[in-house]
Parts: sequence; structure tokens; C-alpha cells
Amino acid sequence: MSIRVDRDTGVTAPSGFRAAGVAAGIKSSGGPDLALVVNDGPEFTAAGVFTTNAVKAAPVLWSQEVLRHRRLRAVVLNSGGANAATGPGGFQDTHATAEKVADRLDTGAIEVAVCSTGLIGERLPMDAVLSGVDCAMSRLDTTATAGLAAAGAVLTTDTHAKQAAARASGWSVGGFAKGAGMLAPNLATMLAVLTTDAVLTGEVLDTALRAATRVTFDRLDVDGGTSTNDTVLLLSSGTSGITPDEREFTEALTAVSLDLVHQLRADAEGVTKEIDIVVRGAASEADAITVGRTVAEDNLVKTALFGSDPNWGRIAMAAGRCGARVDPATLSIHINGVTLCSAGGAAADRSAADLSGKEVEIVIDLGVGAAEATILTTDLSHGYVDENSAYSS
Amino acid sequence: MSIRVDRDTGVTAPSGFRAAGVAAGIKSSGGPDLALVVNDGPEFTAAGVFTTNAVKAAPVLWSQEVLRHRRLRAVVLNSGGANAATGPGGFQDTHATAEKVADRLDTGAIEVAVCSTGLIGERLPMDAVLSGVDCAMSRLDTTATAGLAAAGAVLTTDTHAKQAAARASGWSVGGFAKGAGMLAPNLATMLAVLTTDAVLTGEVLDTALRAATRVTFDRLDVDGGTSTNDTVLLLSSGTSGITPDEREFTEALTAVSLDLVHQLRADAEGVTKEIDIVVRGAASEADAITVGRTVAEDNLVKTALFGSDPNWGRIAMAAGRCGARVDPATLSIHINGVTLCSAGGAAADRSAADLSGKEVEIVIDLGVGAAEATILTTDLSHGYVDENSAYSS
Repeated sequence: MSIRVDRDTGVTAPSGFRAAGVAAGIKSSGGPDLALVVNDGPEFTAAGVFTTNAVKAAPVLWSQEVLRHRRLRAVVLNSGGANAATGPGGFQDTHATAEKVADRLDTGAIEVAVCSTGLIGERLPMDAVLSGVDCAMSRLDTTATAGLAAAGAVLTTDTHAKQAAARASGWSVGGFAKGAGMLAPNLATMLAVLTTDAVLTGEVLDTALRAATRVTFDRLDVDGGTSTNDTVLLLSSGTSGITPDEREFTEALTAVSLDLVHQLRADAEGVTKEIDIVVRGAASEADAITVGRTVAEDNLVKTALFGSDPNWGRIAMAAGRCGARVDPATLSIHINGVTLCSAGGAAADRSAADLSGKEVEIVIDLGVGAAEATILTTDLSHGYVDENSAYSS
Repeated sequence: MSIRVDRDTGVTAPSGFRAAGVAAGIKSSGGPDLALVVNDGPEFTAAGVFTTNAVKAAPVLWSQEVLRHRRLRAVVLNSGGANAATGPGGFQDTHATAEKVADRLDTGAIEVAVCSTGLIGERLPMDAVLSGVDCAMSRLDTTATAGLAAAGAVLTTDTHAKQAAARASGWSVGGFAKGAGMLAPNLATMLAVLTTDAVLTGEVLDTALRAATRVTFDRLDVDGGTSTNDTVLLLSSGTSGITPDEREFTEALTAVSLDLVHQLRADAEGVTKEIDIVVRGAASEADAITVGRTVAEDNLVKTALFGSDPNWGRIAMAAGRCGARVDPATLSIHINGVTLCSAGGAAADRSAADLSGKEVEIVIDLGVGAAEATILTTDLSHGYVDENSAYSS
């Protein structure tokens, strides 16, 4: 199967879904801050993956419970506040939000997932949230415009909405995602809602979602900051009447997820370089991921790349310090196709690597095994420092 | 014992040591770049601790071998090049440097340790290094000025030399250190030479050095970059004729090391805040260190502190993601004496914490045990990005 992904549509690309995004008054800026995605069925199977952070936001605790049933009628999302580190009161706020959506849909709160993003440690203005739900309900629509409005209402420091969709024979997958900082392994300060009209059991959805996120959302690492709120949800309406091959479905889901991850990286805080760190020849995939993440999170590597400096010595340092099996004698480092380090020593002069463009590919061949993994990251720029020091977020 | 540490003297504070620092022409800037510390005995016991990085520089590999004998006549150090990732040729360069020093001292190369710091991946200009050794030999002296010259010749992006000394009853400990970026756990891109005139066996020196570094050099974490070259050496001349109590000696050594670490932090790249991260109530000391380091390395925490923003939510996020035992229900966070987070939720308004000064103390009480650890770090500023993106280092 060759999968084509487009960005013209998102969560409403599969039939059976309505979406809305509104300005509910949660953000002091007055911008869009509440999104709703409703599954009109006939199927309501769903799956979710959540942050590994021990400090989980109230909506994560709630949605994890809800997803035990692998069934969702709707997802309500807000920006303007993470509802994390808000104690029992924050959890009650999440529950009240789910109840409100459930009432309007004539169902139970147990079928409504909640996602929040924004500043940690502040309670949400619940009047705004609840009246926002009413407003969003009145605007729910199946159009591409409605899907885009939902994608736009979850943005924080993102500069634009991110959505993608893939169409197969008779069924489709779509979705949106947000995330700009606190972007790191094991889901990336990030909320994503994925939809499909394929007919699949909850077990298959769950397996496919874990397989897709493991090589997409989990491989994005902007600043190591695995957030309190990371959530990826997958909802199936079943309107297509088609049950695709499981592998084919996972491929389509992975393609849409990867496209969303590329969009997240391109819009990360302060980004001036979009960097692929390809780790090859590792003793295990876990080692490859560890090396890739350590290099991705290393501020000396990130600042050198901001300066368009192919400083492979810093890459070797980061690889060596991460605890993975690294042997200097077999280490090679290639930047944008130029071999700068071979057998642990200098190869081509570093000036041979051209880093003037926005895209950078770093290939680290550990030469100790056959496993590999790719981590996606960005540079560390003055823009990142500005965005994260100038105000609380 | 109350230990007073002063910064007027360093490696030459204990008697039996001569030092020198010269401009050998290794650095293109023409600045001081070669240092020599010679132990004139009668004792020559020594100990060393080295980077945990798998990619070890040639001088680290050499000095680790040399220190197996726990005996040193001299240490030769250079800035202007790390001699890391330089292969067998780089190792030969290190060996030739030790041979040169040994010849001049009429001893064997096996009694000479070598340290290097600077850009990774470049061979050293050996003509300059070897003639620099001759020059340094001719300037060796027991004066405080000579000790300071040695401390000054190992600087890279440091802005000034760092030395400290402590005097006990009849014996003393002194030393210098360098390190400005690539500063991280398990020794901090950092070279340090410590001296004493106390009479101690190699085993006692080794035990004392490991005890001291574990709670000083190992607790500094500026940017997570455990370097290829980190080395701390301790040499004893035995001229005092006194064998102090082991605990008393360790206390003095720890005090001098801690003072050097504070100096390293105060001169770290781009530093505008000197931050103590005190982790209490941890299930284990390892957990306390993990939480402290993760918070210290978190770019969102570091940029918030640069912006004088007491954003405790980011601290909670970083603590939660590090894998240590963290329970939101018992977590409290105190910044400069103000409790901002209690039982995992907001306490005092964040405006109550004043971060306008240079010194910041963050106390994270996990409330799950009795172990604690303090990690020393800095903020992430435009200055750090400038220093590390503007040129190769």
C-alpha cells in the first residue's frame, strides 16, 4: 500500500465525526481555546496513550480511566491551562467538563475524554469552560473547516494548526495535534486526536495506536520535557463498514502520525533547524533510542547546530555519555552526507558539511550491532530562550 | 574541625609542589595554554577519578593507566585542544608529552599524568606542546603566583582562574580547577588538580578523593554534558610529616573541592543565576540525585529561571518525568524560602517568590522518604546560546 497524506483535512476526514473550535474565554488573549470532537457512530471504539510522567494532569488521570472501556463518544480539549498539579479540585473540574459534554450528547461522562494544555498549577476558569462547551456544541460540523477550527483551539505557543489525513480504499484516517515546547520522549507535550471510519475492535485500535506512536510521537524530542498532559486518542466511527487489514491500518495511522510529528517539529519553539538523528549499528533498538535522545537533548549539540557548526565532537561526547554501548573505535558520524568522524577520529574536514539549510541529517553509526532508530529534534536558539523566559507557560 | 578555605593560594599551598603556566602556542589566541604541577616529594602517592563517558580522550586513557600505580611525579595539562576522538595518533601524542616531562624530571613516563581540554576531534600541535614543556620546566616555582599561573593556563571559555586551599594543623590541601561548559554529572568537563603535604597511603588518598568528588564535582550539572576529558587528580608530597585522621582529611579535601565547584558554577557559560537544587524526602539518595539532575538539566526550568520566573509547574514536570519515585500528593516545592507548591497543588502565589537576585535556592520535598541530595546548576541564557553557537569549542 502506498499511503498519501494530505493536510487539507484532519479529524473530519473520516465520516462519522463532527468537530468545533471556539473562543471560550479561558485564554486571557481571547483566542480560540476550546475544541470538541464528537463521534456519531455507529461504532464508538477508541484507544489512548498517555504521558509516562509521574505528575499526571487531572484530564490525563480522567481519560486513562475512561479509556479502560475502549469506547468514546467525544473528546473535549482546552488550551489556556493544563489543569496539572491542581489536586482534587482540578480533577473535579475535569469531571464536570466531561459531565457537561455527556449531558449535551445524552450519554455518560465515562464516554467523554478530556485533554488540557497550558500553564501547570492553575485551576481552570470553569464558567468559561462550561459555557464554551455549549458554544462548541452549537457549532459542531462535519466540514474540513470545523476540523481545522478544532485543531486551532488547542494551540498554545504553536504558531498554526496542524492536521493530516490519509485515505485508503473505502476508509480513512485523520487527525490533529498540538505541541510546541515541553516536547519530549514518550509523547511530546502534546495533544493529538486521531479518527477513523474503519471498523476495528478496541484491541486492534489499541495495538495499532501503540505501534504508531512508538515510532512517531515517541520519537520527537525537542527539549526532553515529557509533559504532565501528553495524550494521543484514536476514535473509530465505523461508518465505512470496512475492516481493513491490521497491518494496512497501522501503516496509515503511522503515516498520519508521522506527518503530524513533522509539523510539530517544524513549529517547535524557536526552531531554526529541523534535525533527523539517525542512529545505526546499535546493540539494540533501546540503545539506538537512548543515543538519539541524548544527542537530541544535548544543549552543546543543539547550540552548535543553531550556529550551523558541524561540531561532531559534541555529538561523540553526547553519544558516549548516555550509557548505551558505544565503542570509540567503531564510531562514525555523518552530517548531511559527509563523513566527519570515522573509527572514532576525524575524517573529512568539518567545513565539508554544509549546514546552511533548515534540514539537517545526522547519522551516527555505532558499529556494534544492527539495530537502529531515528529521533526528530530541533536546535536550541535565542528564540527558544526568548519564548521560555519571557512569560510563564 | 572547622575548615576555612581561601582562594589566595592553590596547588602550591601545600609544600613540596612547584607549578608553572605558560603560553606554548597551542591556542591560536596566543594565551596561556600549558600548565605543569610537579611533586618534589618525599612522598609521591596519588589518586585520580575520571569521566564515565565511553568516548574517553587520549589523556584520560593514559592517566587512568598511570594512576593504577597510585604514584605521580607530575601532571602536565594543556588547553587549546581536548585530544579526544583522535585515535591511536592522539594517544601517541599524550604518551610523547608524558615522556618529555619524565625526561626532564629524570623519571619514567608512568609517573606523569596528562590532562587536555578544548575542541574534540583535533590533533594537538605537538611542536608547541613539547617546547611548552621545556618553557614550563624553566619557570616551575613554589610561589602562589606560580600556582595561579598553572590554574590560568588550563582555561578555555572560563573567564578567570579558579583555585582554593585549606590549612589544618600542620598540613594543608590546595588545588585548581577549570570548566565552563560541557559541565555535568560525574565530573564536569573539568580538569582539577589537588595537592596535599599530608602523609597518606594511595588507598587513603583514593578513598578520600572519591568521597569528596561524589558530593562536590559530581553534583555540579550545568548542561548535562559529561565530557570526554573530565579528570580530578590528587597528589601528596608528604612534606608535613603528618598523617591526619582520615575523616579530617576528607573534610578538608571536600571543602576545597566544594569551593572550586562554586567557582566553576559562578563562571559557567552564560550564567546569570547560581542555583542550588535541594531534593529532600526522597526514597533514596540515587532518586534525590536523579530528580536534582533532571531539574538542573531541564531547559524549560532553566529558561524560566533566566527570566526570574518562579514557574514551579515546570519543576514538577521535570521531577515527574525522571523515573524516580515521585508522588504528586506529597510533593512540595519551595523557591527562595517561599512554598509555591504543597501536596502537589498551588500554595503561595508565585509572585511571592523573589528571583531578582543572582542566587536561587529550590527545595523539592518529595515526601516519600528520608534521603536527600543537592545539585548545583545555572540558568539557560542568551549568553549560553551565544557562547556555544558562535564558534567551535
